[in-house]
Amino acid sequence: MNKATIYGIGLGPGDPDLMSVKADRLVRRIKNVAFFRKAGRKGHARTIVEGLLPMGAIELPMEYPVTMEISVTDPQYNALLSEFYEECKKKIASLSEQGHEVAILCEGDPFFYGSFMHLYTRLKDTHPVTVVPAITGMSGAWTASGAPITWGDDVLTVLLGTLSLDELQKRMANSDALVIMKIGRNIEKIRQALKASNLYQKAYLIEYATMPQQTVHKLSECEGRITPYFSIIIVHGQGRRP
Amino acid sequence: MNKATIYGIGLGPGDPDLMSVKADRLVRRIKNVAFFRKAGRKGHARTIVEGLLPMGAIELPMEYPVTMEISVTDPQYNALLSEFYEECKKKIASLSEQGHEVAILCEGDPFFYGSFMHLYTRLKDTHPVTVVPAITGMSGAWTASGAPITWGDDVLTVLLGTLSLDELQKRMANSDALVIMKIGRNIEKIRQALKASNLYQKAYLIEYATMPQQTVHKLSECEGRITPYFSIIIVHGQGRRP
Repeated sequence: MNKATIYGIGLGPGDPDLMSVKADRLVRRIKNVAFFRKAGRKGHARTIVEGLLPMGAIELPMEYPVTMEISVTDPQYNALLSEFYEECKKKIASLSEQGHEVAILCEGDPFFYGSFMHLYTRLKDTHPVTVVPAITGMSGAWTASGAPITWGDDVLTVLLGTLSLDELQKRMANSDALVIMKIGRNIEKIRQALKASNLYQKAYLIEYATMPQQTVHKLSECEGRITPYFSIIIVHGQGRRP
Repeated sequence: MNKATIYGIGLGPGDPDLMSVKADRLVRRIKNVAFFRKAGRKGHARTIVEGLLPMGAIELPMEYPVTMEISVTDPQYNALLSEFYEECKKKIASLSEQGHEVAILCEGDPFFYGSFMHLYTRLKDTHPVTVVPAITGMSGAWTASGAPITWGDDVLTVLLGTLSLDELQKRMANSDALVIMKIGRNIEKIRQALKASNLYQKAYLIEYATMPQQTVHKLSECEGRITPYFSIIIVHGQGRRP
């Protein structure tokens, strides 16, 4: 039997209306639906497609064995995750080998950070895999901010809050526009780096971009605020504008 | 009469199937359709929506007075462009004031480089403007490359080929993953910067991402090639991968 295609489907920042026409069509058609989630949660990707899956859809939740309990620098973290991805890969590969297409739901764009790539690299040489790009969470965030992120020749740098204070400052000094993701417990370190780079007063915090709970604040106006996982900090570029 | 909404509609990288569900719906409904183009060309944004516009659509092409004839550093460039955007703004504002919705078609994402923002800043305080984000050209390019652009904590930097050799090198040294846009006549300068940064052998050139003419090459394998406007160079990140 021919192996059926495995789709890595980017769902965009959260609003189902912002899925691509192609993603929307695939999600409504493919019966085997795999997605990552934290144990005990519904899963953000799964939430985006609520009400869209076909009759008789077979759901394959893939629950992370750890999320924040172990540091990513601990070798055990890599070992656990590696074993987890290997098992997920086997289940998906087996469906494909039985002739069943599989939709792997991805928040944002599948090739821009995220977990899908760990399945992708394990499947791409032996199984047919098609990747559907999507609107990134950061596009959702800068659109929510109501101002363009880059003008003229502006340099844009995307940073993760998990970087060290030193790294954050070094990279901030070399950019015009900034996007900072994976904020959570890194918020105070990020504030400190932005202050040292004289960017703190220009920074915006966007929570739940494109979702019903969306909020936009100047970062300096939310000291002490607990930021949810779906938060992005941006600093707009100031390039040429005729 | 109430002013009607002006929509800045991101159309994505080129494949009409990669437009968002929301963009697709708006483009099929709104009769007044404005878009930028080079004089004498059909216009890329207009091409993406071919066959989708509603019966009786009224097209409003906005033709740049200059493209590459004058350097962007020449003060005359700014003056000409500024006058041009002012006139476009007046036409669109007038339609809105007469109660007609307007769709402004944008290649890629409206707030990520591009010309739409020059209309947006002139309209946003006096007229209702809604911006629809989209898949960026760079997402289209890294998806075409068949490999994820960023892993783990990778830093991504987006550079324009119009920057000086010095600037390009300085920014390249401070990143893990790279996207370089606006290539055209800057290709030799970009090659030189990549070579000096030891990234030349890792760089890919993607032309016409997501379009029927799409090509993907190692940059080092296309010396002397004339690159079309829709080209993007990428260097993939090498971050953590359990």
